Formats: sequence, structure tokens, C-alpha cells
Amino acid sequence: MTVYHKEISFRSKGENHIVGITDEIQETIDESKMENGIVCAFVPGSTGTITTIEYEPGLQKDLPDALEKIAPRSIEYAHHQTWHDDNGRSHVKASIMGPGISIPFQNKQLIHGTWQQIVFIELDTRPRNRRIILQLIGE
Amino acid sequence: MTVYHKEISFRSKGENHIVGITDEIQETIDESKMENGIVCAFVPGSTGTITTIEYEPGLQKDLPDALEKIAPRSIEYAHHQTWHDDNGRSHVKASIMGPGISIPFQNKQLIHGTWQQIVFIELDTRPRNRRIILQLIGE
Amino acid sequence: MTVYHKEISFRSKGENHIVGITDEIQETIDESKMENGIVCAFVPGSTGTITTIEYEPGLQKDLPDALEKIAPRSIEYAHHQTWHDDNGRSHVKASIMGPGISIPFQNKQLIHGTWQQIVFIELDTRPRNRRIILQLIGE
Repeated sequence: MTVYHKEISFRSKGENHIVGITDEIQETIDESKMENGIVCAFVPGSTGTITTIEYEPGLQKDLPDALEKIAPRSIEYAHHQTWHDDNGRSHVKASIMGPGISIPFQNKQLIHGTWQQIVFIELDTRPRNRRIILQLIGE
Repeated sequence: MTVYHKEISFRSKGENHIVGITDEIQETIDESKMENGIVCAFVPGSTGTITTIEYEPGLQKDLPDALEKIAPRSIEYAHHQTWHDDNGRSHVKASIMGPGISIPFQNKQLIHGTWQQIVFIELDTRPRNRRIILQLIGE
Repeated sequence: MTVYHKEISFRSKGENHIVGITDEIQETIDESKMENGIVCAFVPGSTGTITTIEYEPGLQKDLPDALEKIAPRSIEYAHHQTWHDDNGRSHVKASIMGPGISIPFQNKQLIHGTWQQIVFIELDTRPRNRRIILQLIGE
């Protein structure tokens, strides 16, 4: 049993950019030489999230539209008073969706549905340099 | 320290069917012979979710009603254009809630509140054959 | 590789009290003598949640305001019929946000963004005695 640590980095294109990371996670499992375990994928930062989605253009519009209902861009946020920032909605959406997920792997294969992809979603209002932590635990 | 892998399968009854899986998880801990660790419960597929809830009839109505506010059945989804599908709302709700959770166990007992149950929620628009992955890591 | 179990307890101040637990988690990593791994933070109970947030007064108002859109206090919940309770909204919000998160640690340090804090959020309608489970797995 061991722990394997990997970080992946990229620059997001701004608000609601959905970045697939399934291949990077599978490559990390390959590198780790582990057979069975879990991957904990985590974003350090409070304006992004990690989840799964069927990665097709329609849902890349539908999901942000639904999140807009919870935290619309048109309303005022108390967060803007504190920091003279414009991303109150980004923080709210990130806290509701959470900073990461854990996914099992077995026989060296990440487990997921045929069309289900692991994704990072940029919720901040501008492009950001992002770092995703992959912590593998297994044997 | 070891990894124990189990899959549970069932047929859901369709949209908003909430299926308790607490007993199945405890039985899997018993089988594993582990004392302490975590269970990662994960659904492969992008139209279901796993969470916890007080498992009583009222909340089985209240939770779907609240999710309907985020992704109503009455609006059009871009996803429907892509695949001529009818389950855009299912995908959106599943991505927001996430594909799984991790729960600790200690002294061979799954940790949860007295009325807090672990559940799978069918978010798709029709009955589905479902598979839940339970990946236990512990000692 | 080992498992380290810790429980932290406190009394919440009531609905929407956001309690920082980042320091307690780091102290638990220190105690465990582990170098690398993950922390699974979990609340036993179905009316609270654990997530991350930039911990400043503005967002402590913005996040509850957004959750109020999903599960408003003004509507009736079927849960109230079952138990003559008043906290249907609490249950709904807790199920959507989930009962816990997993966070990686590396070189004895919990990984998180500079202003990103780990928090418990009281969603119940009254002050509660709360217990948070921290299950560390690593080496």
C-alpha cells in the first residue's frame, strides 16, 4: 500500500471553462504502478470545482445555465464589499459543488461510465492558472 | 492495510427513485475483515448521484422538488439538441451533486448519524440498471 | 501505511453558522505522524455539511442567501408532515451539498489554497452539538 502524489497544471480560459482531466488521471495511475485504490482529485483554491459530466457541447452550456440560477451574475454579493472583487458568484458556486471528488480504480483502470468524464470547472470570472492535486492511495 | 472492491447492482424505478445502500455498505465492511478505514462509494454513469439523507417519505418528495428548481423539466436543454435525448436536467443535477462520497468506518462500523442513511438517487428520466462501486481502503 | 481516527466536537450557534476546521485538521495531521495521504472529513448527521470557502464575512452571508434559493424557508416541506419538524430546508440543503469531503496532505501539510478554508456549515434551524469525524489514511 502506498501514496502517489501528482500535480497537473494548465491555464483556464475563464468563467465556465470545463477542462477534461480523465486522461491525465489514467496516466497518473499508470505511472504509479498501483493496481487498485482511489484517486482523490482536489483543487486548491475557492473558485473552481471538480465533478463528472458527459463531456459534450450541449451540457457545457446547460450546466453553467443551471448554476446561474443559484448564483446569478445580476445580483450584488456581500463578498464584493469586502474585497472590491467581482466574483462572489464564483465562490458561492464552488462552495456548493465542493473542491474535489474521489474515484476508485481497479486492475489499473480508473472506473467511470462510458461517457462520464472527470472535469475541472473554472468558476472564476477570468482566466486562471490552475493546479489540480491527484493523491492516489492503493496497492 | 488493504483495498477491498465490491460492486452492488439493482434496477432503479426511474426518476427520483432514492435507493438506500447503507446495509449493503456495512455488509461489505464485514466481508472485508477490515477494522478501520474509508469507503469510497461511486456511481459509474452521469445521471445518478450518491449522498446521505434522513430516509423518510417526506424528504423523498422535498429533495426532488428542490432539485427541480435548479434544473426544471419545463425548460429546453442544449443537451437535447446533441443527442435528441430528454434527460438534460438529469445530467445537470448529477454534475452538481457529484458522483459519489467517502464515508469513514471505525471498529468495523460504518460511521453515520442515527437517521442518516447512504443513498443512491436515480436522476435519469427512466428506470436504469445501476452499478455502485464500493472501494474500501483501510486496515 | 496506516489509519488515524480523530473526532472534533463543538456547539454550533444555529442556522448558517460557518465553523472553520482547517487548524484542527492540520493539528490532526501533526499528531498522526503521517507524511502523505488524505483526510476524509465527515459529519454524522443529516442537517450539516462540510466544504471549502474563502472564510470572510461577505461570503458567510452570500452562501446562505444562495442556498435559500434552492430550499427557501417560506415554503412547506413534506418532511414537516412526517415529524412535525421545521427543518425540511436543512435536510434538503445538506443532501445537495453532501456530508463530507476528502483533502490531500503532502509533506505533513494539508493542501489548500491561500484563502481556502475547510468549514462545517450548520444547516439545522437551531444550535446543535456537532461531532466531525477526521479519518486520515496515509503513510
